[in-house]
Amino acid sequence: MASFRNDYGVLAHPRLLDALSANGMNVEIPYGEDIHSQNAERMILDLFGCPKGKVHFLAGGTQTNLVALSSMLRFPYECVVAASSGHINVHETGAIEGGGHKVVTVPAENGKVSVGKLREIVAYHCDEHMVLPKAVYISDSTEIGTVYTKEELLGLRKACDELGLYLYLDGARLGAALTSSENDVTPKLLSEVCDAFSIGGTKNGFLFGEALVVVNQSLQENLRFLIKNKGAMLAKGYAVGIQFEEALNGGNDSLYFCLAKESNRIAGLLLKGLKGLGLKVADSPTNQLFVELPSPLALSIQEIFGCEIWERKGETTVVRFVTSFASEEKDVDEVLGYLRARL
Amino acid sequence: MASFRNDYGVLAHPRLLDALSANGMNVEIPYGEDIHSQNAERMILDLFGCPKGKVHFLAGGTQTNLVALSSMLRFPYECVVAASSGHINVHETGAIEGGGHKVVTVPAENGKVSVGKLREIVAYHCDEHMVLPKAVYISDSTEIGTVYTKEELLGLRKACDELGLYLYLDGARLGAALTSSENDVTPKLLSEVCDAFSIGGTKNGFLFGEALVVVNQSLQENLRFLIKNKGAMLAKGYAVGIQFEEALNGGNDSLYFCLAKESNRIAGLLLKGLKGLGLKVADSPTNQLFVELPSPLALSIQEIFGCEIWERKGETTVVRFVTSFASEEKDVDEVLGYLRARL
Amino acid sequence: MASFRNDYGVLAHPRLLDALSANGMNVEIPYGEDIHSQNAERMILDLFGCPKGKVHFLAGGTQTNLVALSSMLRFPYECVVAASSGHINVHETGAIEGGGHKVVTVPAENGKVSVGKLREIVAYHCDEHMVLPKAVYISDSTEIGTVYTKEELLGLRKACDELGLYLYLDGARLGAALTSSENDVTPKLLSEVCDAFSIGGTKNGFLFGEALVVVNQSLQENLRFLIKNKGAMLAKGYAVGIQFEEALNGGNDSLYFCLAKESNRIAGLLLKGLKGLGLKVADSPTNQLFVELPSPLALSIQEIFGCEIWERKGETTVVRFVTSFASEEKDVDEVLGYLRARL
Amino acid sequence: MASFRNDYGVLAHPRLLDALSANGMNVEIPYGEDIHSQNAERMILDLFGCPKGKVHFLAGGTQTNLVALSSMLRFPYECVVAASSGHINVHETGAIEGGGHKVVTVPAENGKVSVGKLREIVAYHCDEHMVLPKAVYISDSTEIGTVYTKEELLGLRKACDELGLYLYLDGARLGAALTSSENDVTPKLLSEVCDAFSIGGTKNGFLFGEALVVVNQSLQENLRFLIKNKGAMLAKGYAVGIQFEEALNGGNDSLYFCLAKESNRIAGLLLKGLKGLGLKVADSPTNQLFVELPSPLALSIQEIFGCEIWERKGETTVVRFVTSFASEEKDVDEVLGYLRARL
Repeated sequence: MASFRNDYGVLAHPRLLDALSANGMNVEIPYGEDIHSQNAERMILDLFGCPKGKVHFLAGGTQTNLVALSSMLRFPYECVVAASSGHINVHETGAIEGGGHKVVTVPAENGKVSVGKLREIVAYHCDEHMVLPKAVYISDSTEIGTVYTKEELLGLRKACDELGLYLYLDGARLGAALTSSENDVTPKLLSEVCDAFSIGGTKNGFLFGEALVVVNQSLQENLRFLIKNKGAMLAKGYAVGIQFEEALNGGNDSLYFCLAKESNRIAGLLLKGLKGLGLKVADSPTNQLFVELPSPLALSIQEIFGCEIWERKGETTVVRFVTSFASEEKDVDEVLGYLRARL
Repeated sequence: MASFRNDYGVLAHPRLLDALSANGMNVEIPYGEDIHSQNAERMILDLFGCPKGKVHFLAGGTQTNLVALSSMLRFPYECVVAASSGHINVHETGAIEGGGHKVVTVPAENGKVSVGKLREIVAYHCDEHMVLPKAVYISDSTEIGTVYTKEELLGLRKACDELGLYLYLDGARLGAALTSSENDVTPKLLSEVCDAFSIGGTKNGFLFGEALVVVNQSLQENLRFLIKNKGAMLAKGYAVGIQFEEALNGGNDSLYFCLAKESNRIAGLLLKGLKGLGLKVADSPTNQLFVELPSPLALSIQEIFGCEIWERKGETTVVRFVTSFASEEKDVDEVLGYLRARL
Repeated sequence: MASFRNDYGVLAHPRLLDALSANGMNVEIPYGEDIHSQNAERMILDLFGCPKGKVHFLAGGTQTNLVALSSMLRFPYECVVAASSGHINVHETGAIEGGGHKVVTVPAENGKVSVGKLREIVAYHCDEHMVLPKAVYISDSTEIGTVYTKEELLGLRKACDELGLYLYLDGARLGAALTSSENDVTPKLLSEVCDAFSIGGTKNGFLFGEALVVVNQSLQENLRFLIKNKGAMLAKGYAVGIQFEEALNGGNDSLYFCLAKESNRIAGLLLKGLKGLGLKVADSPTNQLFVELPSPLALSIQEIFGCEIWERKGETTVVRFVTSFASEEKDVDEVLGYLRARL
Repeated sequence: MASFRNDYGVLAHPRLLDALSANGMNVEIPYGEDIHSQNAERMILDLFGCPKGKVHFLAGGTQTNLVALSSMLRFPYECVVAASSGHINVHETGAIEGGGHKVVTVPAENGKVSVGKLREIVAYHCDEHMVLPKAVYISDSTEIGTVYTKEELLGLRKACDELGLYLYLDGARLGAALTSSENDVTPKLLSEVCDAFSIGGTKNGFLFGEALVVVNQSLQENLRFLIKNKGAMLAKGYAVGIQFEEALNGGNDSLYFCLAKESNRIAGLLLKGLKGLGLKVADSPTNQLFVELPSPLALSIQEIFGCEIWERKGETTVVRFVTSFASEEKDVDEVLGYLRARL
């Protein structure tokens, strides 16, 4: 049966597993100082136009966000600003606060932090009885599948410069964002606007692995200490390096972008089909769709296709459909057929 | 010139200073294990009907809140629920998060946490990807001068029992609350509904000092370790004990309640006078009043009478008037006269 | 060229990579709630005789130690006792302290915590001005390759019971310990003496992965919240589950123990050879050997065979030789030949 | 009966209480921004020759240490080096670790950190798997009553400069140190060698209050945020300011130094008397003496004169005698008489 539960339910793309196996019995330098990680770092810095950046390979998204923001927030009175729907605010079980820092929120506008709301919240924090905003967290694609435009990112950068804030972009689904039909952001732009950003592998066909790209050189010093301190330093860091080496081979035409693009394409077919059925679907140009269904049908969809319940509204329920690198057109046909028969 | 800036701008009531001086050259046991602190503890437990409680004397409000909530939140994934206007959320510079715990907020209803909003936010936190609500923070009087009713407190207690939550009441201005004209809460009720609560001295005529009353016996163990760990254990703890001994002498008719009552009475006169001038004043039955003034006048009031700016609305500005144990009727006359001449 | 640098320089045993590939395109439940993880959990609980235990699969050793100890240390005044040479004290970049808890040390006795030293340090911590010991950290095999005996573990358990302490055993190299020639500890004994222990995969042929076994039921509640809070919850937890399923198939004769045993055997050959060369070698029954060499030779050995410098003593230097699942007899011949020609 | 329990068992010197009373009904600016605090700050900066320093007034010693070190340790992988006997290591219930930082110790040499041991411990911490030393904690007088010499302090400063470390001096008993017969340190030297230091009031006749002097301008920014975040900002900060104003009036001849000097003088008489009785006394030039007594006599001394038990050696026991601003010659006669009759 097709699954639309998430984009991390299938182990890994065969090419990545093969790359691992091909290096299976080599002796490598541990803790991310191996040749594969160095090679992958160079590929990333080339692709994202960031020759003076540093790249660290970590296991998962929450720890990547934690490490990145912990490098920006040096004192416990410093806080990060995020959209109310931001992953660090809602779905990381208080990891940032566990590290001693408040997450201050602004109302999400289509899943995003707007310059206006950012300026308001910073202005509100006016003295030493309140926390001091020091960083902004955004995600691209966002938690609801939307993407930032070039103009929005440039606007945030400008505001951050004026307000003395770091800008961190959580790219757990960066592939989906950059290959989205609505995207006008180039990889190089990210290095121009962000102080740090991540490139997610786990949700784009990797066995595991995220790349943390630290653009701002003042944040680079001693980051390996921080990674180790947070329990995030992988003994076999080369296992992530090998995957990024393989996935990014070919730059914009590499496996990394192909998988994300295909995942978006399948989501696009699903979106079209759902709309064709007269369903209310939030417009998302990436691989996450939010669909309002009659509540009993929502429960069936959850049970059979794995979709997560997003919001209960009484007679109707919003469910999330996610496509992944492993999704196929026939999966879309299957779920649309199922729905068509019951609506 | 009269000051309405706050209720901690005057050192201390003479009777409290005299009590300190009277004990000035005795040798006392340090760290709160002295006879005065023991005596004051017994007086508090009697007055609040809590024979099995434990009382600790601390220097300030933020650290009292921090100690109390740190005793309730044992794991970094556990959070406290507060009103969006709650002191720990807005005005303690991230102290709770600095200790590793998220503050989750509900919209304040007249400065308070309602049972309905509490149930909603707990229901929303449904799995291990989100923080786990473990405590509720309320303040009485609240940050906007309102007071909880007996019914509200009993309702919160019932909800906390059902939801597995501790209830902590920040009584930095407890005197003002319990002597307010709208109050129907007895001291004994606090011991029935709260797992812990504080009795503020600093904002009620003390040189310094707050009493933390720990009602729930499961929270009492090793609390002195926690106080020391947070840097909140006073070497000369008896300095607070001596003040509480003196202030609470006489129970409901003691200096503690007299000072608060008088402070409320003066605020009541001011409230009546401000309304008489046709001004828009938020109805508060305690010693904090929030008054909307033409913005230029608000600035003068800030400069001359020390009032804090609370909210800028463009042409008008909300300023806070606070009365204290040291406020007098002539102070009210003075400020009303000033306003009358300029409206 | 042979490498004796560490036991995590080679990606993974082919059987584990094959097991991953064989499940490469299945759809799995995320976050460790999949069938493979459940199966592996059952296998572990059977093997270690702990039917009521709970098992969590994590990515690395530092985060496993951090999660385990964070579940035991609930208040910031609670500390863990470790040997001065303990991994958490020296080589985890302050991760435990980063989580808010002091690591109190006792002098290591052959790499171990003795009951005598444990009782002394607990007795020393006598009041609320000092931290409160709440857990004991030991590792087996230890950081210097030694192993605990049954008698030592039973003695520690007894002391922990009397002193109100949890006992945590870091099994990053548990395979090496349990298959050591000096070992008299059964897997089941670990469940009897420990409140929690880990079973390391990373240092025993896994691509990555550690199993945290929580024996004490009072520590089991909400552990998934803690794992997520620490950034240690793997989206593709099944990747670890699959490896443990395969590695533990066959119980005491399984791949897990075979790899560790072979690694110890090769280390034994090396030990014998080094002694035959008249070198001073610390007696270790597992896969880590500490050898004193003339300092210039130590540097060559570091450069050519990857051995880490352990202690500089001036004219001589102690280097560490580590064998791994990938070590072979010819590697031993190679390094012994090299040394023989230069001594 | 005379008490030698500690130097914080008597409330306050009458002149300080009088100064408080004299300002009892003024309206002051809260949170340490009042005129008294500003005046006291200027007096301190003059006396210690530190025109560009900043002074903050806090309630107690542990929180002062916590604030100072938290300003120096910006990342959780950064640690402070202290003597094994250092107050932050032993007697602050893990406050520094509670804030997320490891305390790394060197063996105390006569209660002090030596340059040699400091260099050793820093050299030992060589890579990102270990914490990174960033600050040094010393106390003057030390926990065993000894004092640093000018040469020692200059040596530590030089080493700190070379090693990239901040130097913090805990002056909880700074008065005792600077007025000691063995002292060759001027107040101005402290500003030359320290990045920050504290001036203790609580243990030198104050009702409560410590001054934190931040010399290094790079540590001054936003320190008020940190103070508030740690729960250490006093609403009535002027209560400390008023005491320092009074106590430091007269500079080197002020009450602050007179009280400390007299306390040292009484301790000197006691030391001489104890030696005259043939007792083994650790040589201390300040107000703490450590005396070895037959164990039963030690217990009597504890009971009658309040002395703390310092170390149990079986047949003998070391007890601590502390003199305070309130100690008198007759107290010395009393305890010496008691001992003479029983030895």
